[in-house]
This record gives sequence, structure tokens and C-alpha cells, in this order.
Amino acid sequence: MSSPHDAIEVITAKRDAGELSDSQIDWVIDAYTRGDVADEQMSALAMAILLNGMNRREIARWTGAMIASGERMDFSSLSRGTSDKHSTGGVGDKITLPLAPLVAACGIAVPQLSGRGLGHTGGTLDKLESIPGWRAALSNDEMMAQLESVGAVICAAGDGLAPADKKLYALRDVTGTVEAIPLIASSIMSKKIAEGTGALVLDVKVGTGAFMKSVERARELAETMVALGTDAGVRTVALLTDMSTPLGLTAGNAIEVAESVEVLAGGGPADVVELTVALAREMLLAAGVDDVDPAAKLADGSAMDAWRAMIAAQGGDPDAPLPTAREQHVVPAPASGTLHRLDAMAVGLAAWRLGAGRARKEDPVQAGAGVVWHARPGDRVVEGQPLFTLLTDEPERFDRALASLEGGYDVGDGPAPVSPLVIDRIG
Amino acid sequence: MSSPHDAIEVITAKRDAGELSDSQIDWVIDAYTRGDVADEQMSALAMAILLNGMNRREIARWTGAMIASGERMDFSSLSRGTSDKHSTGGVGDKITLPLAPLVAACGIAVPQLSGRGLGHTGGTLDKLESIPGWRAALSNDEMMAQLESVGAVICAAGDGLAPADKKLYALRDVTGTVEAIPLIASSIMSKKIAEGTGALVLDVKVGTGAFMKSVERARELAETMVALGTDAGVRTVALLTDMSTPLGLTAGNAIEVAESVEVLAGGGPADVVELTVALAREMLLAAGVDDVDPAAKLADGSAMDAWRAMIAAQGGDPDAPLPTAREQHVVPAPASGTLHRLDAMAVGLAAWRLGAGRARKEDPVQAGAGVVWHARPGDRVVEGQPLFTLLTDEPERFDRALASLEGGYDVGDGPAPVSPLVIDRIG
Repeated sequence: MSSPHDAIEVITAKRDAGELSDSQIDWVIDAYTRGDVADEQMSALAMAILLNGMNRREIARWTGAMIASGERMDFSSLSRGTSDKHSTGGVGDKITLPLAPLVAACGIAVPQLSGRGLGHTGGTLDKLESIPGWRAALSNDEMMAQLESVGAVICAAGDGLAPADKKLYALRDVTGTVEAIPLIASSIMSKKIAEGTGALVLDVKVGTGAFMKSVERARELAETMVALGTDAGVRTVALLTDMSTPLGLTAGNAIEVAESVEVLAGGGPADVVELTVALAREMLLAAGVDDVDPAAKLADGSAMDAWRAMIAAQGGDPDAPLPTAREQHVVPAPASGTLHRLDAMAVGLAAWRLGAGRARKEDPVQAGAGVVWHARPGDRVVEGQPLFTLLTDEPERFDRALASLEGGYDVGDGPAPVSPLVIDRIG
Repeated sequence: MSSPHDAIEVITAKRDAGELSDSQIDWVIDAYTRGDVADEQMSALAMAILLNGMNRREIARWTGAMIASGERMDFSSLSRGTSDKHSTGGVGDKITLPLAPLVAACGIAVPQLSGRGLGHTGGTLDKLESIPGWRAALSNDEMMAQLESVGAVICAAGDGLAPADKKLYALRDVTGTVEAIPLIASSIMSKKIAEGTGALVLDVKVGTGAFMKSVERARELAETMVALGTDAGVRTVALLTDMSTPLGLTAGNAIEVAESVEVLAGGGPADVVELTVALAREMLLAAGVDDVDPAAKLADGSAMDAWRAMIAAQGGDPDAPLPTAREQHVVPAPASGTLHRLDAMAVGLAAWRLGAGRARKEDPVQAGAGVVWHARPGDRVVEGQPLFTLLTDEPERFDRALASLEGGYDVGDGPAPVSPLVIDRIG
């Protein structure tokens, strides 16, 4: 064997808190992708990275090696610039749905490669698949054609982008090594850089319902990702946004599509509108556009037109009725007063347990399942009036969903504490 | 599933520097043995244990869980007490060969379950297998009968003892997680406790040729193992012994058997005799025997009688000529003076590269291969006279063996620095 490195050498270097060389990183990612480094070796390395960290050079090289494991897309032949968004995942986070057509309506193409949900945060593709006829899988040619004609695509990432990341992500998921900032950052950024977007806005969620529970950790992740994007020539900015409270008034699949359509029609919950417009501004700015007001494009119906065209281009019927759940269960407000707190994790778990999400990758999701809450923190509630509506096709799911809501909200006197939706901007 | 735990919960608990509960440890070892916890999960846990440690309770429970994964032997029906020895492995460490029959000649039975070598330290079974006819595999019944009749057995550990350890050891070997004191201690002690010996002496090697390079780490390992043995009702003591210099004058297989026979005949290198007698005294003391002098049993030939009976009982011919290597290469002393330093790792690597050891478990070893050194630190050497003789069946191996000896010894003026062979006693 003329291999320049071996797995144990790389693992022990990081185990002993050393820096990995460029050559070690290139080798281990390539060898892992080819199967020459075994899963049990990579998981030991991932744990060592989680506990001993990687510096900026190591993370950049690691990301580059994952990009080099697969194909890169190229949007430079398009007649307009591209800008993409990535959210680290939250409860009720349907923002991609109104955002992609809104930015397209402002003249910038949005190539959104999305995923399916796992655990308590929903997946964008799962939501869109509740629209009759809509399909997530597009060829690269179909994607390019739709970006040119419609300006927005939300579709499944093909197997060709960063296959090393796909393999490593699945491994981290079962080995307790998900929570390593260098690995999270390189996983997200390898796919986004390989995708070929010219600009990128990161929505890094913070709070109980988010992957990052503290502002410090979220800021570290955001700074790491912005540095990676910038170093790779992608104009990258990050917003830290609150995920202690779920977004909007719905968490599920079809019910989130309906809420997104309300926003595109000029209505919808204020927080969803606020975040959609804020992210659209950042996506436009990052793509060099500072003379278009996205709020106006929501108001004049052009964002809705782009939505309809985008859904139709992928086989969906934007006018078809959305699926509904067969069963519902209403939870009344326990007292009159002000809703002081609504916990994102409690709501996310309830929606997941009702069938809106999946426990394993191969599980199906229910299109109609989810949770609707009838008040947001700061709103008045009246004892005995509906506070939550739980939706599912399988009524035996109500008990566990109700259990996860317990202790997940407070009704009190006086005004609710106010916390900003956009906490910080990095980049 | 009504499983009380899951792998990610156990991994993340240790990853986050928490203590594992008894129930978590029992579950994870059992589930790993059954294959319900995957290799990639156990290797992540092993790395977390290596980096975050385990306390005495956790290590004891971990050891107990590994013992519970298999069968336990019971020597209580024997007409005499039992005492065993374990060495953490060194270069030229043939001590088990004269030691087991010596202790048997002193009236205590020695049930030595040994292993084969991997890497630069030799394996006791590999050495004995150079004796024509000798076989390592015995049934439990054969082992009991031989312990009763001869008083000493050196044989391969069966698959029934601590199968969890067997599986975990193989995993650690390829995942950079060998060097964790809790895992080393529990691996050694689970087998020794399951083996059922009444007393145990640990020879913990320290120095360049040993697994433990520093006295501090060796002491920590020794104290951990003595505590584990004592807690399990095995009278356990440890000697810390020097492994900066290889033991005796030979490192290989047949050549170490020949050197052991010299010791049993009342001769042999002084350091091998010293350590054999010191360990025999400890094994006898731990078994409650304080009125027999092992040195006398070497001198009067009774240890040699026990050796011959032990070898013959396992099919070996103690009078048959030992295999010799087909090729030899002599390295002369580079100068006249005193041998100041002879590095154990350099000699061990040279012997390994000559074919005395194996790189992979399935490799064969050469019976005749190895290194003979003609002086020990403190001895006079004369320029141009033989300092090393390298032995192998494959002359193309000489170059790499010579390379590993380079820088591995110093000849100088004045006396050599003196360091004691037995550094400390614990227990």
C-alpha cells in the first residue's frame, strides 16, 4: 500500500488534540467515501473532533474535501444572479415556502435544495409534498430550466452533491456526534457551496426548539459558516433568530403550506411575514440587489404569481384543496389572561407525535397532521376557549401529543416578556 | 421496544462528561455483545471514555458486565491453590515460560491463559508454538486435569471467557481507542477474573518498549487493576517493572524459549532470573505461600521438571531441537566502550520486522526469527565485535530491521546509568 496515511494515525492525532494536516483531511474524507476507512473509525474520529475541536483551517479543508467527494453545480449560465437560504431547523419554520418565490419575484433566482424532516423539526419537502401532484425530484436540467423560467426551485438534493457528507451525516446521527460545530458547519456548507449558489443567507435558530440552545453556540456556528462561505467565494451572511417560540400559528405539513399561502396573499402571522421579508432583504443584498422592496412584492401579488408558477412547474396544483386530518382534538385555555410562553420544543414534539414528522428516515409522514395554536405569546386568551387544535389521522396519537404539550405554555397576568425575532446579524 | 436504554443516550452521557449508571453499563455491554449496539456506536463511546474517563465504580461495573457476557471458570475443586500472572507486554518478555513451571514446582497451580502477539511485543503462545508438537488449544477438562497433574498450564483462552471483551478489543485496535486506562484495565481484569484464579500478580511494564511510557500512567493502570481484582475477591498485587531496555538477550520465538530453558537450568541472563524469581515470590505470597524459596526450585531442577512435564502434557517434545532461522546478519559494535543504552522499542520493532511478530491477526510468525543482542547496558563492547545478530528466513527483511535499530543504542565511556528492574510494588 502506498497510502499516505492510515485511519489510526488520523484518529489518534485528533484524539491527542493535535491539528490534522490538509493531507490527512483530504485522505480521510476520500478514504471514508470509498469505504477504506470504516464507519467505526470515522465515528471515533467524529467523537474526537466533537471533544477536541478543529480550527478554521481544518474546518475549511474538511468542507473542501467533502465538496470534492462529489459533483458541483454551476449556475453561471443563468440570465440572473442566484441567492439561497439555509435554516438550521425550527418548529413551524415554513419560511422557505413564501421566501423562495418572493425573492424570485424580486429578480434573483433561488435554487433551494431541501431535505426531509427527522425528529421534531419539519422538512420543507414533506410540507410541499402535501400539495397534490407536486414532486420533489428534479434532474439538473429540469432545475436549470425552472430557475430560468420561474426563478425559484425547491427540490430534493441529488445524490451527486457531497456524498461524503451524506454518509457522514447518517453516521453522526446514530453515534451521538451530531452536536459538533465543525461537523455541523462543514455539513451544511459543503452542500451549499457544491450547489453553486452565488450568495447565501443562513438562518441560525436559537432556543428551546432549535438545535442550538444558547446564543453563544449559535453565534459560533454562524461565524464558522460565514467564514467557510466567504473563503469559498460565496457571499454569505447569517441571522440569528429566535426559536424559543414556534413560528406562526401552525406546525405540520399541509397546515404550514396553507399558512405560507396566506403570507403570499398579503396576510398571515406577523412573525412569519417579518422573518420572510428580513431574509428576502438579506438574500437580495447578498446578490447585489438593494433597490427592490420585497414587502411590496408580497403586497402586489407578484410573489404569489411566482409561487403558483413554481408549484405548477413541479407538477403541483396550486388550486387543489390541501389534505386534512381525519381527527382533531381541541385543548382549551386553562385560564384567562395573557399567553406568556409557548415552548417551541413542546409544540414540535406534539406535531411529531401526531404524525407530522418521522422517527426513522424510511417512515411516512401524515400530510394533514400537526398542531395549530390559536394565540401567540402576548395575545389574550379566555378560559375554556380553544388554545390548541391537534390534528392527526390516528386518534391513538393524541395522548402522547398532549403529554408533550404539558408544561409547554404559561398563561399569566400582565404583558408577556418581549423577545426580538432577529437576535443578531453576522457577516 | 422495552429496552431500558439506547446507544445514543449512553454515548452522549459520557460525551458530555457524565457518569454512566450501572444500568447503562450493563445494557450497553450486553447490547454490544448481542449486536444491538453497532460497532460505530461502541467506538464513539470508547473515544468518549478515552477522553472523559470513568470513575472506579464505572470501571468495576464495566468489568463486571464484560465478565457476565461469558462463562466463568472455577478452580476450587483443585487440590492446591491457584495463582496467575499477567504482563502488559514487553520486548524479550519470556518470563511466563520459566515462571509458570517454577511456581508449580513451589506447590501452587498456574492457569495461564495467554494470547498471541500483535505489533512489536511478542506473544507467549507464539513462542511456545516454536516447540515441535506443542499445542495451545486445550479444553476446560484438559486444562483442569493438567493443573492437577502438572500444576502449570499455558494455553489459549477459549472463546467463552468475556466475549464482550474480545469484540471490544478488536474494535479498539482499529479505532485509535486502545490507550484508555479504564478500557485497558477492564479488558485485562475481566479475563483474569472470569478465568477464576485465586491470586493474581500484574507485571506492569514502563518505558519506551512498553505500552505505558511513563511511570505515572503505569501506576494509574496498576492501581486501577489492583482495585478491580481486590473488589472481585482476587488477591491482586502489581509490580511496575522497567521496559526501557529489553529483557534478557533475545527477542523472538524459539530463541526466547531457548533462553527460558537456560533460566530453568539454573543459568540465563541475570535480569530474566531476577524478574522470574520476584514474580514467583509475589505469586506465592498472593496465594498464601511464604515458606518456599523459588530460587531454590530453580537451582534444584524441580522447576525444569515441571517445565518438561508441562510441555509434554500439551504434546510438545522438550528435547526436540528448536527451529532456527535460515539467514543471519551480524551488526558489529561501532566503537569500543560501555553499552550505555539499548532501546526496547528499537529492538522490538527489529524483531517484528524480521518476522517474529505479526502486523495483522491472521499473519503467521517465523519460529526462528528475532534479534539476539550480545551485550546489555553496562557491559563492555569492542569495536567490530558482534553487537547484534539478526535472524530471519527472509533476507529481504534485514534492511528495515536494521533501520529500526538505528539510533536505538549508545556506546560511550564510563559506566552506564543504572536503573532498577522493579520500580515499584502496588497492592
